[in-house]
Amino acid sequence: MHMKGKTIFFDSPPIITGHAGVVGKKEGEGPLAQDFDAIFEDTSMGQQSYELAESAMLHDAIIRALSNAGKSPSEVDFILSGDLLDQCMGSAFALKDLEVPSIGLFGACSTMALSLSVGSMLVDAGAKCIVAGTSSHFCSSERQFRFPLEYGGQRPPSAQWTVTGAGSAVVEQQGDGIKIKAVQIGTITDLGITDANNMGAAMAPAAARTISDFLRDTNTKPQNYDLILTGDLGFTGTELLYELMQQEYKTKLEGYHRDCGMMIFDLKEQDVNSGGSGCGCSGSVLCSHILKNMKKGKLKKVLFVATGALMSPTSNKQGNPIPGIAHAVLLER
Amino acid sequence: MHMKGKTIFFDSPPIITGHAGVVGKKEGEGPLAQDFDAIFEDTSMGQQSYELAESAMLHDAIIRALSNAGKSPSEVDFILSGDLLDQCMGSAFALKDLEVPSIGLFGACSTMALSLSVGSMLVDAGAKCIVAGTSSHFCSSERQFRFPLEYGGQRPPSAQWTVTGAGSAVVEQQGDGIKIKAVQIGTITDLGITDANNMGAAMAPAAARTISDFLRDTNTKPQNYDLILTGDLGFTGTELLYELMQQEYKTKLEGYHRDCGMMIFDLKEQDVNSGGSGCGCSGSVLCSHILKNMKKGKLKKVLFVATGALMSPTSNKQGNPIPGIAHAVLLER
Repeated sequence: MHMKGKTIFFDSPPIITGHAGVVGKKEGEGPLAQDFDAIFEDTSMGQQSYELAESAMLHDAIIRALSNAGKSPSEVDFILSGDLLDQCMGSAFALKDLEVPSIGLFGACSTMALSLSVGSMLVDAGAKCIVAGTSSHFCSSERQFRFPLEYGGQRPPSAQWTVTGAGSAVVEQQGDGIKIKAVQIGTITDLGITDANNMGAAMAPAAARTISDFLRDTNTKPQNYDLILTGDLGFTGTELLYELMQQEYKTKLEGYHRDCGMMIFDLKEQDVNSGGSGCGCSGSVLCSHILKNMKKGKLKKVLFVATGALMSPTSNKQGNPIPGIAHAVLLER
Repeated sequence: MHMKGKTIFFDSPPIITGHAGVVGKKEGEGPLAQDFDAIFEDTSMGQQSYELAESAMLHDAIIRALSNAGKSPSEVDFILSGDLLDQCMGSAFALKDLEVPSIGLFGACSTMALSLSVGSMLVDAGAKCIVAGTSSHFCSSERQFRFPLEYGGQRPPSAQWTVTGAGSAVVEQQGDGIKIKAVQIGTITDLGITDANNMGAAMAPAAARTISDFLRDTNTKPQNYDLILTGDLGFTGTELLYELMQQEYKTKLEGYHRDCGMMIFDLKEQDVNSGGSGCGCSGSVLCSHILKNMKKGKLKKVLFVATGALMSPTSNKQGNPIPGIAHAVLLER
């Protein structure tokens, strides 16, 4: 690999040889239903807690991605995974029976891009096969970050709906699949947003920064991509991203950009306010709908930019701002 | 890099060019006092919360390590950091003003070895300079994982005392310093321990596995090292490690091994039960006492194996076992 500015370019691009996105019932009723690799009607996954249900879903996505790539866990050098739960419990319990060396990551909702970025650098360094993954679950997130489910708290229009789902991708040095041409590790960006019901606003500045850094380093414009895909800015965050890109970076993003959080649900019909969120949002959308459409040739060059809000319930209750981060992955057919 | 078994060997070993370990008052009254780069009498660090105090301590360790290496933050390609707090709040707030691309990690108390392992692979891949770091704080950990400080809960003899401290190391492709010759990413190991007051027991099986895998892959024995250094098994976990190594792997570790958790405090005088724990335990001991002694030539070949208990208060209250993990870093003068 070589770096230019903040962007890491791969001379021999790592290849996504297998991938899977799995979701829960509500996501399975949305516009992307036909592309998911599995839709679980029972989002408890037969487990005794929401947290273990999330782990089971991530485990399922990993096994499907591996099977898709024709690999067994014993052929994997490293699994890179993380999630939103305290101490990344979702990943720990998903991975513990796979017997694969495990790198725990924390990037909040940016984790799919973080795991793919770090994973492809490790492949570039010499690993033959890695697995990147992440997950989220509406019920485990809701009770951890907001209120008990039974409370039925109301949400402002800027709030988002945590996706119940998981995504996983197998990345190898060689093979058939979508190429990872470049990645960028994001820089934490904090404009002082403190409203935990407006994550889009907290993450939009990080997205704008990473996208503009990437365009600068690659000397490209939005029209050079089939799609610039953010993770889960939702409706509110997307509007802010467009404004920031226009005002700060003189770049028009409208028409070249979509957001996984606005794609996974029907915002008019599914009562999700500003859209989907959570690690599993961009994880499941990228690893099913997007990569499938790239394989079919409908999309050839996609810049995937997943954003994370690096807050905890504690940091938020203490009145601290919500730092944002956005990592980028350039995918090419 | 090339892999043999689970161990990653570097053909051009990355070099630790700067390092710093900083601690709080209690750690500064222990046996390693003279080697720490800073001892903070006021462990609130002038902040409004214990969590932000932890962030301030990590920030301090990073700045000292960079200064030690003669580097400014703008010369750093990536910072890799994580901690025990929910959503790794300690790291997010420590890093946010540094303006360096940030890779969030979660490895619980294994984070110092995880950040050094992943960081050195990234240096091997082409990064010129990375910073690895981690932190913990007695007060932020205690109230998150156990009880409010004011409650004064009693602890069984197997319980450990979370270290208030942080460690950070700068790793570069070239320069003067201690070489990272090999690393190993650990595999999650779960023998069904559920007692959150006995983390040593939960982590010892992972330590035994990683140490024996490393000895196998390198065709070495404990006597080939000046020191095999575990992170924070404490007294109870160390006893179990010796038993496991003897019974399962026919290897005698006594005499070649020490544990940071037993080194940082005087177990007889400082009322810490089984010893120190927390990410900051092995972080501060490695990045001060150990690396300083390696530079002086007192230690030439050290196998650093930090262990993590991948539990959350939620997973524990739900009665789940505590999965352990241990990552290894081979350091040579």
